[in-house]
Amino acid sequence: MYPTYPPELNKAQEQYLLQSLKDWSIANGLAVRPAPSYVATDKNPGEALAGNAPVTLFPSLFPKVCFEQAKSVAKAYNELYSAIASDENWLTGIVEELVEIDDFMAGLWKVHLAVKKEGFAQSLNLGLFRSDYMVHLGQDHAPKPTVKQVEFNTIASSFGGLSGKVTKLHRHLRAIDAYPDSVSTIINDAAQPESQSIASLAKGMASAHKAYGASKTGLPTVVLFLVQDPERNVFDQRHLEYALNDNDGIKTFRLSFDRVLQDTKLDSHRNLIYTPPHSPSKHYEATVIYFRAGYAPTDYKDQSQWDARLLLERSAAIKCPTVLTQLAGTKKVQQVLATPHSPHLAKFLPDEAKAATVLGTFAPIYPLDKSEAGIEARKLATNPETAVKYVLKPQREGGGNNVYRKAIPAFLKSLPESHWPAYILMEMIEPPAQSNSIFRNGEVQTGGVICELGIYGACVWKSVNDGKREILDNFEAGFLLRTKGDQSEEGGVAAGFGSVDSPCLVNV
Amino acid sequence: MYPTYPPELNKAQEQYLLQSLKDWSIANGLAVRPAPSYVATDKNPGEALAGNAPVTLFPSLFPKVCFEQAKSVAKAYNELYSAIASDENWLTGIVEELVEIDDFMAGLWKVHLAVKKEGFAQSLNLGLFRSDYMVHLGQDHAPKPTVKQVEFNTIASSFGGLSGKVTKLHRHLRAIDAYPDSVSTIINDAAQPESQSIASLAKGMASAHKAYGASKTGLPTVVLFLVQDPERNVFDQRHLEYALNDNDGIKTFRLSFDRVLQDTKLDSHRNLIYTPPHSPSKHYEATVIYFRAGYAPTDYKDQSQWDARLLLERSAAIKCPTVLTQLAGTKKVQQVLATPHSPHLAKFLPDEAKAATVLGTFAPIYPLDKSEAGIEARKLATNPETAVKYVLKPQREGGGNNVYRKAIPAFLKSLPESHWPAYILMEMIEPPAQSNSIFRNGEVQTGGVICELGIYGACVWKSVNDGKREILDNFEAGFLLRTKGDQSEEGGVAAGFGSVDSPCLVNV
Repeated sequence: MYPTYPPELNKAQEQYLLQSLKDWSIANGLAVRPAPSYVATDKNPGEALAGNAPVTLFPSLFPKVCFEQAKSVAKAYNELYSAIASDENWLTGIVEELVEIDDFMAGLWKVHLAVKKEGFAQSLNLGLFRSDYMVHLGQDHAPKPTVKQVEFNTIASSFGGLSGKVTKLHRHLRAIDAYPDSVSTIINDAAQPESQSIASLAKGMASAHKAYGASKTGLPTVVLFLVQDPERNVFDQRHLEYALNDNDGIKTFRLSFDRVLQDTKLDSHRNLIYTPPHSPSKHYEATVIYFRAGYAPTDYKDQSQWDARLLLERSAAIKCPTVLTQLAGTKKVQQVLATPHSPHLAKFLPDEAKAATVLGTFAPIYPLDKSEAGIEARKLATNPETAVKYVLKPQREGGGNNVYRKAIPAFLKSLPESHWPAYILMEMIEPPAQSNSIFRNGEVQTGGVICELGIYGACVWKSVNDGKREILDNFEAGFLLRTKGDQSEEGGVAAGFGSVDSPCLVNV
Repeated sequence: MYPTYPPELNKAQEQYLLQSLKDWSIANGLAVRPAPSYVATDKNPGEALAGNAPVTLFPSLFPKVCFEQAKSVAKAYNELYSAIASDENWLTGIVEELVEIDDFMAGLWKVHLAVKKEGFAQSLNLGLFRSDYMVHLGQDHAPKPTVKQVEFNTIASSFGGLSGKVTKLHRHLRAIDAYPDSVSTIINDAAQPESQSIASLAKGMASAHKAYGASKTGLPTVVLFLVQDPERNVFDQRHLEYALNDNDGIKTFRLSFDRVLQDTKLDSHRNLIYTPPHSPSKHYEATVIYFRAGYAPTDYKDQSQWDARLLLERSAAIKCPTVLTQLAGTKKVQQVLATPHSPHLAKFLPDEAKAATVLGTFAPIYPLDKSEAGIEARKLATNPETAVKYVLKPQREGGGNNVYRKAIPAFLKSLPESHWPAYILMEMIEPPAQSNSIFRNGEVQTGGVICELGIYGACVWKSVNDGKREILDNFEAGFLLRTKGDQSEEGGVAAGFGSVDSPCLVNV
């Protein structure tokens, strides 16, 4: 489907490209803190060193029609997921099935129920979402490739602070003739869209901050970035902070998830008061909590983190996301929406035309329970001829451990049938083959790659009665292309190590 | 003279400040490549790691009146040094004394004479100067401090690419409350001027590039950055390149001084043709050569570097600087101008008011020869009571090895009098005492510091007959504050390790 690309580089060409890439990246904050396996902690006084963010040497090819398709549904997805997150009754039905098999979900649900019992102190919500897609060729390669959704992220969607910089990097490399002339018919300005994800995600936070209104306490207001510590991907987050500071004059603080109980408290109206450890006589009222931590089971090491999450959920700060919004992003919700003939999409997105565009991005996903769809799925999964088109994923969040294609029937056979409902069955997305080189930890790896396009969306909404919501702001918020080795080639790009990429749009 | 400053930080305050400083610096390209003593080369695959540029934690205090004085003379200095560089006869008189004692000067002069003999292919000149000052209190501390010139740089003035970012860093640290409230009366917007050195130095190069005119060969035109390899301070240079690329659409290439003979050639009209090693079928016409190499004796390891310098000097590209402009920046010229009752300043700067402002920035400098001024200086230098006010500097460029104050009489006694003219005697500049902390290689050092303010100037001129010149463009181009340990305190800031700083202007 794609032209021959990228061009091979001789040694002098690669050296010029890499030197330019390394310098531009650091000069422009396209950086990460190095892992201890890259730079030993005892050789890194003050942990002050930085390295390039892993990036591709060339922008990867991406069908223009698919790129536009993915962008075109961003606002509809915001509508959809804000509706789901606002319908607690419906979500209860989904989640109650899961709390049996997933302690993490059970923990989150407990937080939600506790706050529900007390009553919610804040009806405003902020979603900074990212819908991730791959290009799907379909079995007959006809008529045109489409994007199919891999997952929908409702919490801690990362790389929005770096993504736009990769397009700039790849544009720079083209401008300085680091790409051979032979690709000039493929890469040009029109083929290299710029991601406005930094400004747009910051704008989403600013919108929620404004919707929050004036300080309730008289204290100065701030947006809190809830973070892991240590955080290697800190510059990705910092760029959003700096945009909020510089574009909107909004003060921000980074708050480690482990420090919530020490550094914050609720006043009698449950306003969230933050006291910076470096300045204990100063207090701030938090308008928005932007979660870049607390999304994975591993973030909750003991009860204190659950207490921290509860404190934040109880607060009058706008949570990005609430527990309900986080739970709306589970695989189970994705499956329920994407199961063929599901009625749920129409419930949340009554506009038929809009719903059709969203539906067009779903790859079929089935439960493995005893419902009608589940029974159909069990046939597909246990038959070796049909199983090769599928991937089996555990319902449990943060699990990994997918089972692919022909391994599925034997795997299911090894399990008692009563455990099958703990999995979903998803049709494999079949992206077109392509190659690229990834620069990571100072080294280049070349080989087959798989690209995943993420479209960010920002949505501010107000929960009203009866599971309804009123949308106050809704916009597409830039994009991310992430590229990793396809594991198919010997000596190629190491599996699992992703990189930040930018799309080179092609007409297919 | 100064208020008590900077404030002491407790551990939590320092941690917050440092984390913010480290992240902001890398996110914004305020960076250097680490020395092998900091990160061993074998632990740095692809030499992809970067560290913070050494910076001060706080902006250092600097009298506003001195800052304004230094800026106000920038254009006059451009006039002065463009006039000196254009008066070959006068420079001959200066240089011929020096070539006897300094092989490096002799080598440069030989290059100049060879091109003179052949005839010059380019009458346009670009100066990107930096005049360095310290605050001088004078013996009686009255009436006001003034700036006195340390040196005037006519080649490879560095840190213009980082300087403006340090003001932004220190403003950012203030904005995020990393500085205790106690200093809010001292540091504020008005006290923190921004250095426009990146944009201004790039504008100077763009001005010369435009003055060069259309391509003479039909080849695309470029500005060449002549650089050392390896170069740790590469981001300082890259920021200027990117500004030229982005603001003016001018293409740039980095050319290692060691690769001049391989990668460039002169056509029959001595147009300088550059062929990038990564793209040997492409050729470019260089309009401007910006020297960030070739300034020190150590850059000339063997004859090939001298051949390279000759090739560039012969070319029709605009040299920033020519050999004559480089030689105008020698200590000897500074001394001849600054010797009390010198007639030379008036010759080059006939406007008396302008000359007076420049003269006001001179610290007295004497020769140690047998001239009238030299005989006076010998008395000052050999008398222990007066010698304490002076520093003795070798005429030889790139030497170091200054002799200070009371050590001067004994040092001179140890030399045969015939060698004394190889030195100049300069009145010590006496800056006010202050402290600061420097963050360098991941570690903080605190103690007494000395600040040096550099004012950049950009000047494009055309040499005309009889040592005259016509100025085409002349502007002040931002500033740099560099700060180093004053060596006076035990356990303080290590001597010799400078940092990039920004001024906090104070009324004194």
